Amino acid sequence: MANIAKKVSWSGRGDDRGERTPLLNGDEEVKYNRQDIVRSRPKEIPHNEKLLSLKFESLDYDNSENQLFLEEERRMSHMGFRCLEIRRWVICGLIGFLTGLIACMIDIAVEKLAGYKYFAVKLNIEKYTELGGLSISLILWAVLNSAFVMFGAIAVAFVEPIAAGSGIPQIKCFLNGVKIPRVVRLKTLVIKVFGVICSVAGGLAVGKEGPMIHSGAVVAAGVSQGRSTSLKKDFKIFEYFRRDTEKRDFVSAGAAAGVSAAFGAPVGGVLFSLEEGASFWNQMLTWRIFFASMVSTFTLNFFLSIYHGKPGELSSPGLINFGRFDSDIVQYNLYEIPLFIIMGALGGVLGALFNIINYWLTIFRIRYIHRPCLQVMEAMLVAAVTATVSFAMIYFSNDCQPLGQDNTEEYPLQLFCADGEYNSMATAFFNTPERSVRSLFHNPPGTYNPVTLGVFTLAYFFLAVWTYGLTVSAGVFIPSLLIGAAWGRLFGILLSFIASSQSIWADPGKYALIGAAAQLGGIVRMTLSLTVILVEATGNVTYGFPIMLVLMTAKIVGDYFIEGLYDIHIKLQSVPFLHWDAPPTSHWLTAREVMSSPVTCLNRVEKVGRIVDVLSNTSTIHNGFPVVAHTSENDEPGIICGLILRSQLIVLLKHKVFVERASSRLSQRKLQLKDFRDAYPRFPPIQSIHVSQDERECMMDLTEFMNPTPYTVPQETSLPRVFKLFRALGLRHLVVVDNENRVVGLVTRKDLARYHVGKDGLEELHLAQT
Amino acid sequence: MANIAKKVSWSGRGDDRGERTPLLNGDEEVKYNRQDIVRSRPKEIPHNEKLLSLKFESLDYDNSENQLFLEEERRMSHMGFRCLEIRRWVICGLIGFLTGLIACMIDIAVEKLAGYKYFAVKLNIEKYTELGGLSISLILWAVLNSAFVMFGAIAVAFVEPIAAGSGIPQIKCFLNGVKIPRVVRLKTLVIKVFGVICSVAGGLAVGKEGPMIHSGAVVAAGVSQGRSTSLKKDFKIFEYFRRDTEKRDFVSAGAAAGVSAAFGAPVGGVLFSLEEGASFWNQMLTWRIFFASMVSTFTLNFFLSIYHGKPGELSSPGLINFGRFDSDIVQYNLYEIPLFIIMGALGGVLGALFNIINYWLTIFRIRYIHRPCLQVMEAMLVAAVTATVSFAMIYFSNDCQPLGQDNTEEYPLQLFCADGEYNSMATAFFNTPERSVRSLFHNPPGTYNPVTLGVFTLAYFFLAVWTYGLTVSAGVFIPSLLIGAAWGRLFGILLSFIASSQSIWADPGKYALIGAAAQLGGIVRMTLSLTVILVEATGNVTYGFPIMLVLMTAKIVGDYFIEGLYDIHIKLQSVPFLHWDAPPTSHWLTAREVMSSPVTCLNRVEKVGRIVDVLSNTSTIHNGFPVVAHTSENDEPGIICGLILRSQLIVLLKHKVFVERASSRLSQRKLQLKDFRDAYPRFPPIQSIHVSQDERECMMDLTEFMNPTPYTVPQETSLPRVFKLFRALGLRHLVVVDNENRVVGLVTRKDLARYHVGKDGLEELHLAQT
Repeated sequence: MANIAKKVSWSGRGDDRGERTPLLNGDEEVKYNRQDIVRSRPKEIPHNEKLLSLKFESLDYDNSENQLFLEEERRMSHMGFRCLEIRRWVICGLIGFLTGLIACMIDIAVEKLAGYKYFAVKLNIEKYTELGGLSISLILWAVLNSAFVMFGAIAVAFVEPIAAGSGIPQIKCFLNGVKIPRVVRLKTLVIKVFGVICSVAGGLAVGKEGPMIHSGAVVAAGVSQGRSTSLKKDFKIFEYFRRDTEKRDFVSAGAAAGVSAAFGAPVGGVLFSLEEGASFWNQMLTWRIFFASMVSTFTLNFFLSIYHGKPGELSSPGLINFGRFDSDIVQYNLYEIPLFIIMGALGGVLGALFNIINYWLTIFRIRYIHRPCLQVMEAMLVAAVTATVSFAMIYFSNDCQPLGQDNTEEYPLQLFCADGEYNSMATAFFNTPERSVRSLFHNPPGTYNPVTLGVFTLAYFFLAVWTYGLTVSAGVFIPSLLIGAAWGRLFGILLSFIASSQSIWADPGKYALIGAAAQLGGIVRMTLSLTVILVEATGNVTYGFPIMLVLMTAKIVGDYFIEGLYDIHIKLQSVPFLHWDAPPTSHWLTAREVMSSPVTCLNRVEKVGRIVDVLSNTSTIHNGFPVVAHTSENDEPGIICGLILRSQLIVLLKHKVFVERASSRLSQRKLQLKDFRDAYPRFPPIQSIHVSQDERECMMDLTEFMNPTPYTVPQETSLPRVFKLFRALGLRHLVVVDNENRVVGLVTRKDLARYHVGKDGLEELHLAQT
Repeated sequence: MANIAKKVSWSGRGDDRGERTPLLNGDEEVKYNRQDIVRSRPKEIPHNEKLLSLKFESLDYDNSENQLFLEEERRMSHMGFRCLEIRRWVICGLIGFLTGLIACMIDIAVEKLAGYKYFAVKLNIEKYTELGGLSISLILWAVLNSAFVMFGAIAVAFVEPIAAGSGIPQIKCFLNGVKIPRVVRLKTLVIKVFGVICSVAGGLAVGKEGPMIHSGAVVAAGVSQGRSTSLKKDFKIFEYFRRDTEKRDFVSAGAAAGVSAAFGAPVGGVLFSLEEGASFWNQMLTWRIFFASMVSTFTLNFFLSIYHGKPGELSSPGLINFGRFDSDIVQYNLYEIPLFIIMGALGGVLGALFNIINYWLTIFRIRYIHRPCLQVMEAMLVAAVTATVSFAMIYFSNDCQPLGQDNTEEYPLQLFCADGEYNSMATAFFNTPERSVRSLFHNPPGTYNPVTLGVFTLAYFFLAVWTYGLTVSAGVFIPSLLIGAAWGRLFGILLSFIASSQSIWADPGKYALIGAAAQLGGIVRMTLSLTVILVEATGNVTYGFPIMLVLMTAKIVGDYFIEGLYDIHIKLQSVPFLHWDAPPTSHWLTAREVMSSPVTCLNRVEKVGRIVDVLSNTSTIHNGFPVVAHTSENDEPGIICGLILRSQLIVLLKHKVFVERASSRLSQRKLQLKDFRDAYPRFPPIQSIHVSQDERECMMDLTEFMNPTPYTVPQETSLPRVFKLFRALGLRHLVVVDNENRVVGLVTRKDLARYHVGKDGLEELHLAQT
């Protein structure tokens, strides 16, 4: 049953700590200890949100300013820094370009594949409408859908489980500073792109927008490092950027470029990145992010304009095309605002319902559907059910609409309608969801039958709930918008019944937009960035104020019931996620209470054997060690003089930087920052480094490699103050010292993340080894 | 000559340190010292940008978490925090509402006054066109203009000099953390509003948008404190928010609301606030800022819709109305992008030229035009010259255009044109600048004669340069846009000459927009927020990418020559402004080199006499004092145990919180946080507090009032690291300690701000007492 965690958690099979190479440094006792701990792990992992996993490591947004680093910085001229800056811009441009290209590829592939599918099914239905025996069409449709989804699900479930879902929660965590294993690898990108094409073409109630954000992030992480570890290819460029600080900045840009490509919303992309990720706002960084976003939209538009045969026409928006609201038609009036607020509240309630059902579903999946083949089968089942429900609804609806002159429907299905008419329910299903949203926004009044809309909303709502969390790459933005647009338009139609036809209520398209915003806001609970994204995607700023009101209302109402969908999934993975502020009532706590203590400290000149032992001790896997002037024997804490990271120690051990070898090292070259960068980010485990018994007696001088000025706080510092320092600077380790600067504890991310506000005040999460 | 600094510097007559009440604590020696220093000040104040003024104090964005504060926070329940949060939202709503109201008032007043003026002048001109003797019209016009401007200039120069200019540099400094005296007072607001109405109605080449940002900030500072010190009215509400931390947050919201009202750009407003001010991005704060922006636009639109007789039609944008670009017409093509970039470069060059001329003009003004009456006369002169130039250009131009059916010009002037035609040059001048911008953007091709445009650009450019920096309330946004729109349209017309009429180049309105963006970008050098403001103000997202490109180019080209206009004025005032990052080549410097040392420390229990002496010592006006365990006699630094502010000490002295009086204090009430809040932000000077000779022998226990956990850094910390900590947390004092936690120095804003990158690497500014 311990398998559960392995299969469903984001880290997928990334939990390679179990399969590590055996300890080579001959420390049998430690090895024993470790196995004990492995055995003593709870068999059934209680996957609930009251746990905080120790599995996730932190990113380090604070440069380790050791001597090597300072020397390099000091060597650099002003021109050198300018070149670096230019390189950053070039990278951002590349990120934007590649993200746009990927978006373009996905868009064209989905359109082609879905087109073939709908065409085949349409032909088949038309054939059997006359002959009778439409069940054959149903089967064809279901099989086609399942086949597409099967390919996607197999790729995800068997090759790279982290590529499942929209990827937004994972990117959110990454930007927050949590290292999610494998999340920004090339393989993940490939599977993600393939998966999303399959699942959208497979007719699932999903969108291709969320995955774009993940794709952008992967592109950014790859490009900015100038190499691909998966492909074992190092271009020897951009080596300066091989550290968490820079990488995270670029990943922000990548996520923004993804949003920008997905929604044609460059500003929305920037705001998304900032809202979800950044803590310290830096103007230059923001401009670069903006640049990446702009290039991404531009690239996408450029290539799509060529694809659509109008090369050079760059005015169209991103992947999603909601169509522009014409500014003459769309106006709203003061007395409509209460209506908007009601819709916002409705969106909040429906969104919360969505989240609650999905929460239970996810728990169920974690418990029972953890084998890859089961996951694939579930995905195929959902695909088949989606096809069946769609078919049933088309079959039983008799909502016929006249085929207009300026027919925007690509696959009008006559079915049982009179000649010159088409089945409007079929339109809703015989389209990629984006097109359906657009129709709901823009089709003239009277296009849709209220009953059709009601039934459609209901069916699509449950399909979408069921679909989110499947082992396929898929986003939740578009289904949410579609559900909202459907009930929003229904709302608008009902309003127009009670009003005269000449009134401002006559156009239900406006209400479809507001409904879409309300539903999406109720599910994901974003406000600022979502407002901007919707404004940009609809190309009209008039609705800014109503959309903001609606999103705010949806968030307030929704938060009363349950958290946002992404936060639920983050919590279910027990990620140590840091929110914006410390819980408000946490002034009671001080650093003394939250810190981990005692701390394993190292001496400035330390015995190699001790370092190896400390690193190999798996009962307490620390990643940072305060360096003290001299640890006295009688367990009295030493005076802090630096901080060194596990990764640095590993590189030092690997290169045998021992004091005793200093003389022979004169002939060798000196250890450089480059050696650390080459190892980044996949530092080898300690077990892979062979240290002989002789070497264990050597000494290592850490002075040059440790960060001599780590941030410290006194023990009496209140939790909110510690939190602010930690969050604002993106720290990984914060040393707690006493009056005389002696190390007494260490605060890490999990120490801060475990406090949260529960029903009855401040609660503490439990730490778990999952 | 010492008057120079007094009259022209932002602090105006706020430099009341000289007029302080005499020292009452009988310390003659100190008093003597002080006068010495006053005498020893340099006679001629060398107002240049290589100085850093010690006059400006810092805001403290770091809460002083002393025992009183912690006790209050700990007493508060979770519900209490929620109420606080709700109150914050209410305040932001109020800020938005009031800012919108003020914007509405300004708009209506300007429109009415300018309307009357143009009407009178038009009648007069029409009368004298037939009779001959147009010089009388010219005189009427010049006198009217000068009269309006005179009132505005007198109010600004004699009542509140800080209300001069756009206020954006001042707000930028405030958000950066510099306390600009009197900048957020009610009196400033009143003068600002009055001044801007006068100067716009007076026909100067100014806009009303910049001052809106300042007005919003003042409203925010006032509302959030729940009282007006000027009116001596305390509403006893929002007392919790009476500290720099909260106030600065609200001022951000106010500035955003101002932008939002001015340009109808709520998102742009948020981004402006963030780009100019915030360092730590907090999601909740951003949402509140956004809310204030939205409410502001909404209020403005609502009241303007009533004023224009279409109540409830909320779809119009802010104060500025560029008119919407229709999405069908506005398209751009790939091959236009190089043209845009050329325009951006041109904008950068012209912007730099603008800034250079204005820089020399400002230096000239500082040297020679520092008496208020001279300032008023200069303003009147500019007003008269503006009228004369306008008149001459109208008179000598013979650019007649047919009066169309759908005539958008409110004051068409026939002058020497044939019947049914009007003088198009007159239109450009007989309009508030906003209307002219709109005409340049939207009038159909052929409306403007290229020669007219060229001459207009040239004349308006120099008028605008001359006008910015006058002692009137006025913004530079609109004149910049107008100049840019004029040459942009000219550029477009020239393009259409070389292309066929059917091509995409046929519409010069598009180029007017791009030109406007380029010119404004070249002058103020904003990018992200300006892009969004322009996109929102034109109501069209299509041009997002070109506008961004153009702004980037303009910034890069402009930065090559000189800084942005606001930065020039900030530098000329010697404000210790902190940029986003430390200078790149500053890794050479460590805290040891930049810190101020030795530091005046206080004991935990300190003699009142010493505290009074320390506070009264004007040779080194410190605002924060490290509290140490026990300062030994032999000048060895003590171990840090806290930090106390001058303002806190003053309140303690005022309330006589002496150890010896503790017994009698039992009958009195204990000193509370409220006492500090009541004194905020205008703490009395030390000289106003009477301390008897007996009391000087008493002791004060600072334990309860000091911040026991100030942030500290070791001496070896590099400047960029210190800078990052300081900037990210918005600190005012950063204590530098040695290995054993003993105080060795103090880093303040001026210590960091004085390093900057000059032509030959890192330069250090001089500190001056001005």
